[in-house]
Amino acid sequence: MSPSSLANARIDGRRFWSTIERSAAIGTWRHGLNRLTLSDADKAIRDQFVEWCGGAGLAVRIDEVGNIFGRRAGRDDHLAPVLLGSHLDTQANGGRFDGIVGVLGALELVRTLNDLGHVTRRPIEIVNWTNEEGARFSPPMVASGCFAGVYERDWVYGRTADDGATLGGELVRIGYRGEVPVGGVVPDSYLELHIEQGPILDAERLQVGVVTHGYTSHGMLVEFRGETAHTGPWPMQSRRSALVAGARLVAAVDDIGWDFAHVGGKASAPRLQAWPNRAGILSEWAQVVCDVRQDDPVIAGIMAERVQRAVGEAAARAGCTCEILDRWNWGGRIFDEAMVELVRDTAASLGYSHRDVASQAGHDAYFLARICPTAMIFTPCRGGITHNDGEDATLDELIPGVNVLLHAAVARADR
Amino acid sequence: MSPSSLANARIDGRRFWSTIERSAAIGTWRHGLNRLTLSDADKAIRDQFVEWCGGAGLAVRIDEVGNIFGRRAGRDDHLAPVLLGSHLDTQANGGRFDGIVGVLGALELVRTLNDLGHVTRRPIEIVNWTNEEGARFSPPMVASGCFAGVYERDWVYGRTADDGATLGGELVRIGYRGEVPVGGVVPDSYLELHIEQGPILDAERLQVGVVTHGYTSHGMLVEFRGETAHTGPWPMQSRRSALVAGARLVAAVDDIGWDFAHVGGKASAPRLQAWPNRAGILSEWAQVVCDVRQDDPVIAGIMAERVQRAVGEAAARAGCTCEILDRWNWGGRIFDEAMVELVRDTAASLGYSHRDVASQAGHDAYFLARICPTAMIFTPCRGGITHNDGEDATLDELIPGVNVLLHAAVARADR
Repeated sequence: MSPSSLANARIDGRRFWSTIERSAAIGTWRHGLNRLTLSDADKAIRDQFVEWCGGAGLAVRIDEVGNIFGRRAGRDDHLAPVLLGSHLDTQANGGRFDGIVGVLGALELVRTLNDLGHVTRRPIEIVNWTNEEGARFSPPMVASGCFAGVYERDWVYGRTADDGATLGGELVRIGYRGEVPVGGVVPDSYLELHIEQGPILDAERLQVGVVTHGYTSHGMLVEFRGETAHTGPWPMQSRRSALVAGARLVAAVDDIGWDFAHVGGKASAPRLQAWPNRAGILSEWAQVVCDVRQDDPVIAGIMAERVQRAVGEAAARAGCTCEILDRWNWGGRIFDEAMVELVRDTAASLGYSHRDVASQAGHDAYFLARICPTAMIFTPCRGGITHNDGEDATLDELIPGVNVLLHAAVARADR
Repeated sequence: MSPSSLANARIDGRRFWSTIERSAAIGTWRHGLNRLTLSDADKAIRDQFVEWCGGAGLAVRIDEVGNIFGRRAGRDDHLAPVLLGSHLDTQANGGRFDGIVGVLGALELVRTLNDLGHVTRRPIEIVNWTNEEGARFSPPMVASGCFAGVYERDWVYGRTADDGATLGGELVRIGYRGEVPVGGVVPDSYLELHIEQGPILDAERLQVGVVTHGYTSHGMLVEFRGETAHTGPWPMQSRRSALVAGARLVAAVDDIGWDFAHVGGKASAPRLQAWPNRAGILSEWAQVVCDVRQDDPVIAGIMAERVQRAVGEAAARAGCTCEILDRWNWGGRIFDEAMVELVRDTAASLGYSHRDVASQAGHDAYFLARICPTAMIFTPCRGGITHNDGEDATLDELIPGVNVLLHAAVARADR
């Protein structure tokens, strides 16, 4: 194959779209998907993905936390692979593109290289990470975090869903607890294609987002403890309702978000659980998941400090005790400069309109950036709507990003 | 039997206590009980109760909503019965006495009359009402409400638990959907013995509470609707989180309770559900159960008005729509003056220290008061603690109330 035919290579849009549509038929929910990690629907898309990998000549392996890798051999096959991927699980009211374009775009890339008969110097591997969303098992990105050495395998297995199922148990149930040890191999580099999940590219009618960094996010899992009592006779002065403490925190976090809205800050407390949470009885236990996000790490830190103070205030106001059970943070200038430049240059050389953007959402790439040079490519999505079945993008909006993935990955793999 | 031996009749405390203790072994949870209505534990205590009724010579019948009646024939058996009872179901973190002393006290009364060989003129019936607590199926007191003609049988069957089970389905599952039509028979009168669920009798070391009326309570079930979105990129200005709306209402209701605490008002929002209620996604749906209680119906009305305004404010603040799906109210001066006087006179004639008290909790008696002369008798409970496994009372504290029940019921039944 001539260098010029490789330079002119473009993905097959029709094939890519039919793959996206086949995925969208698995776990369909309203106009989008409800394909929670390790559910029956997740098993079905995994089976389909493994079949697609086989059809594309990839050697499939599954690691102990269910990450699925498809390997395309390189000319110097002992070299570290260029890794490309994202996730096939979705939120409870998710769309057809979030995560999915990153995995199926990488699959389309492999198919395109197969058509061209081009074998890269380094192997290329594509990956579907387990439980990116964290909607069923907390925290999110737990399996890419395990791959990057941040989480222990057995701790990951112990993550528990609301119905009592464990991540480890569900991996066994759907047949995706693989034999391959997690991590250990350091990729040459990692590239993740994703819909923007923000309004900028759509509003500015740009084809490609070059992700320079991630918003800084601080999150925490907070527990309140009080005591049960009757909602009737029990005096207000004696009440220790953990639900009231949790609700006060949810409201306070929202207030903090509003206080920083003019500088693009966000604060969310999307999950509040309580027990017994029943009519007639005050709750003795509550948990709240909350986080703040802002582009500037200093401002994000100020917001996190405000949230932490709000935890104590909510507890005191409701007569409860509180404990911050878990904390996490991500984002910042974690991506590799050369990789980001490669993405920018590739978009330019392919003639696509593009701009630098920050990622406001969490991504598996954040963990991969800890162990190898990493970058991300964004494609537009309508109105920035995501984590909603109204999430939408056209094929024409997706193709440029997949072509950038193709050429950036090949450039890296042929180094 | 001579009139004087009847006048001197007292219940058998040891037998009564052993019955209470046997009940406390069914559905044991921490130091108390978790015997949600129509659960396996509720079936077990129902089976035990039916066996006890049979042992006491009562004719048992079960109506279509699972209310269990045990009938002791009267000399003029065609006359309307004097009805005595309460409930054997408990809250999720309930005690061994709430409701239970009313049913098992009535059983002990029958056993005492059997010992004496005294047959009353009117029949006496004892009853265990289904789902008084409303902890598993909303609303509370649904089966006594059905008996009183307030709720339709089929509507009662359709009440649904968090796990999707219906009240009607669970009645069938545990074998307690009886053949007897609900209600239709108007009792001569209804007497309900209950622990105070308040601190007054315990604090003042009094043996019997003569319940004159109930606090006025206004409750509502509120629904908020918004839309799902990503907790990261989605701007604060665009958010429509139903969980935030619900949490703001829970906090506002608590504030209203505090505003009226100095006059003994209570406001509670003990239950907040949301969907998806997961990390990473804003919730599109939430429901809140809330109520206010105050002795003075006018003040209770002011509190209810405040809550209603808070519903709209919470929705507006979170960009959601709201709807009040259901409203209820109870309490007030609903009890029969002659019956209240009978309880007071009986306590006095037995030499028990007593005082008039208001009920702050809801009771099946509130519905019975709509169809027949009704009164309630309270016994002390430690610190007023209830809907908590720390609920406690000694046998000595319970005996006076059961003896008042005995003599008031016999006086009524021999009329």
